[in-house]
Amino acid sequence: MTRRNLLYAQSGGVTAVINATAAAIIETARRHPEAIGAIYAARNGILGALAENLVDTAALDDAALAALALTPGGAFGSCRFDLDPPDQNPAQYDRLFDVFAAHDIGYFLYNGGNGSMDTVAKITAAAQARGFPITAIGVPKTVDNDLEGSDCSPGFGSAAKYVATSMLEAGLDLAAMSGSKGRVFVMEVMGRNAGWLAAATALAARDRVDAPPHIILLPEVAFDDETFLAKVREVVERLGYCTVTVSEGVRRADGSLVMEQGHDNKGHVQLGGAGQCIARLVSTRLGYKHHWAIPDYLQRAAGHLVSATDHAQARAVGTAAVEYAVAGRKAAMPAIIREADEPYRWRIGAVDTRAIANLERLVPAHFIREDGLHVTDAALRYLRPLVEGEVVRPYRDGLPDYSAVNLRSLRRRLPAQVS
Amino acid sequence: MTRRNLLYAQSGGVTAVINATAAAIIETARRHPEAIGAIYAARNGILGALAENLVDTAALDDAALAALALTPGGAFGSCRFDLDPPDQNPAQYDRLFDVFAAHDIGYFLYNGGNGSMDTVAKITAAAQARGFPITAIGVPKTVDNDLEGSDCSPGFGSAAKYVATSMLEAGLDLAAMSGSKGRVFVMEVMGRNAGWLAAATALAARDRVDAPPHIILLPEVAFDDETFLAKVREVVERLGYCTVTVSEGVRRADGSLVMEQGHDNKGHVQLGGAGQCIARLVSTRLGYKHHWAIPDYLQRAAGHLVSATDHAQARAVGTAAVEYAVAGRKAAMPAIIREADEPYRWRIGAVDTRAIANLERLVPAHFIREDGLHVTDAALRYLRPLVEGEVVRPYRDGLPDYSAVNLRSLRRRLPAQVS
Repeated sequence: MTRRNLLYAQSGGVTAVINATAAAIIETARRHPEAIGAIYAARNGILGALAENLVDTAALDDAALAALALTPGGAFGSCRFDLDPPDQNPAQYDRLFDVFAAHDIGYFLYNGGNGSMDTVAKITAAAQARGFPITAIGVPKTVDNDLEGSDCSPGFGSAAKYVATSMLEAGLDLAAMSGSKGRVFVMEVMGRNAGWLAAATALAARDRVDAPPHIILLPEVAFDDETFLAKVREVVERLGYCTVTVSEGVRRADGSLVMEQGHDNKGHVQLGGAGQCIARLVSTRLGYKHHWAIPDYLQRAAGHLVSATDHAQARAVGTAAVEYAVAGRKAAMPAIIREADEPYRWRIGAVDTRAIANLERLVPAHFIREDGLHVTDAALRYLRPLVEGEVVRPYRDGLPDYSAVNLRSLRRRLPAQVS
Repeated sequence: MTRRNLLYAQSGGVTAVINATAAAIIETARRHPEAIGAIYAARNGILGALAENLVDTAALDDAALAALALTPGGAFGSCRFDLDPPDQNPAQYDRLFDVFAAHDIGYFLYNGGNGSMDTVAKITAAAQARGFPITAIGVPKTVDNDLEGSDCSPGFGSAAKYVATSMLEAGLDLAAMSGSKGRVFVMEVMGRNAGWLAAATALAARDRVDAPPHIILLPEVAFDDETFLAKVREVVERLGYCTVTVSEGVRRADGSLVMEQGHDNKGHVQLGGAGQCIARLVSTRLGYKHHWAIPDYLQRAAGHLVSATDHAQARAVGTAAVEYAVAGRKAAMPAIIREADEPYRWRIGAVDTRAIANLERLVPAHFIREDGLHVTDAALRYLRPLVEGEVVRPYRDGLPDYSAVNLRSLRRRLPAQVS
């Protein structure tokens, strides 16, 4: 068997566990010296591949890889960039394959979401059309959990654990502060089209009746001011306070984003996140005191609150991706297959990136309560195991002891990219 | 010695460790049966005392107290309410002392910030003027760290650990996502007048050069648009991204709040937090991509990321408060006295609430860097030990296993309060 080099790259929004996948890929690739030579990474995803901006991971010893696996963010840098269709921009693929050839890349592992699976499918198609020898593999990752073909996506479980814990804790705070005037707390979570993270905050309630979050606004459900406000009033009158989770991408029935819908009395658009707009609506219409939180990057970078299930799955897809690469399973993606809810059992299975690229898995109707303002028991059964377990991690001086990867760039073998 | 009953109450914004203080008070009071009879708590602070809305903590067993000590929020409910001066509203004190007398309260322990110390001082003065037998003790708590007389305040260390960890993690995320166009992340933290929490995010940088946060905007320093923007540009041109911490209460030299200063091009005020206004300023003036996070309640309720130092101090002030009460040290507050920075040593000492009530301890000039955009090494030496150590805590189904205190109200002995 000919040894070829492996190139790994990270794409899209990074997560608390994408580096765990990276570490597993490097560790597994080192166990395949019969097939894999050098193990490279591209800086900033496919952009680094195009720019021949590569690093050699050989300098990372076992301790460095163990630390990397517990560090959030994307150690090699990420990007938001889609390749053009091969027939529209063949020069882009010429360049990419020139870089692959110059560094004898036989395996390309791309770690990302829907767009990255499309990149893997396009590279596979272009390579086959040209007879270029490359095995491109998709490695799943997205806090949005909207990847088709996998029961869940690495990164989601940890972000879900973070937002559910945050709602639980903020709810305790709010319950203590609720005064006679009613108090409303709104937390805006990520999810432009898919409400998985918003749904996950339902775990905060556990088995307690009337516990936060009292209302969950999903992008899958058209937002209606009056239905929402009536529910807020009902909750506040009963409990003295109300907690609301809102997906950043919540829309009204006419398709307009709630976050674009704030207007002052002269008709000027007031920009702001969905959380702020919802809080302002409650304040304006019902007169309750209001607070809003926007965890933003905090929810996908919380390495201090990683789900052990998510961490194990992030490693497992990395390991499987290398095995698929060595086996020559072109355009495959290791997916997480659920075998049982309780006790939770899962395994890895292969899906074809060409069948799922650019699809978007939304929260299904049977996970959404009939009134559209919360989730069902079926959703909770799905979500519960994904946040399970804690990862013991080192601290230094009171803060998580994260590592930095400082690798020198590979010497370039090609002229600079013509853009 | 005559046994009298003890009444405990929580006031102001709650914290991740105020219930640890509550648990320590109850545990310590039980060890003084020679002086203390029943141990009651008021619901929602002094409002509950006025309304005769009291609970008996006798039903809390050792396990319940241990769980309480690890639960954020205020288990007995809090309030934002100041007593009137005794000479202006004697009826308010008549009512309060009637409630105290009806339940044989000999000790009143009020757990809060500056305003609560004022309440303790006022009750002590009114009681002395009337010859009413009560020992009122102040118990410190505030995430704002702005209480005079104590080196730090319980609640601050845990909130500081949370915001520093959050900046560390968001910084890793941002570094991975920084593209060619420059990327700026702004995190708004609590602190209307005192910038202690904003300053604490400096711990995220540790000993790394050019690490987040790159800029810290404190309410103690007049905000100047041009100075700030020039620094942002300099950082982005050097690193490709820039992270900013902003206190919610940052003001311009004319005293106006930055968060009130957003105007659209027609002169209409655009409401929003300081974080959003700063992010929008960067975007409008420099054209960089921007994100902002507002942890809001999350930063003071993060029971999952408590500082062990803070937790120990929260318990210590509770224990000392009971001992001061039994010793009859009227109007005293147990304060934290720092004996050494490194290794950190501290002890509890008594201060008189009448000397510190309503004062506000701001970040001192020697903790602020000369350009006003960051903190000094002296600030780091002060802050570092306060976030030290982790508290091991139970999880259930993947989330922190917090407890709820469900105590029946005491039977009322007085007519309802006339308001």
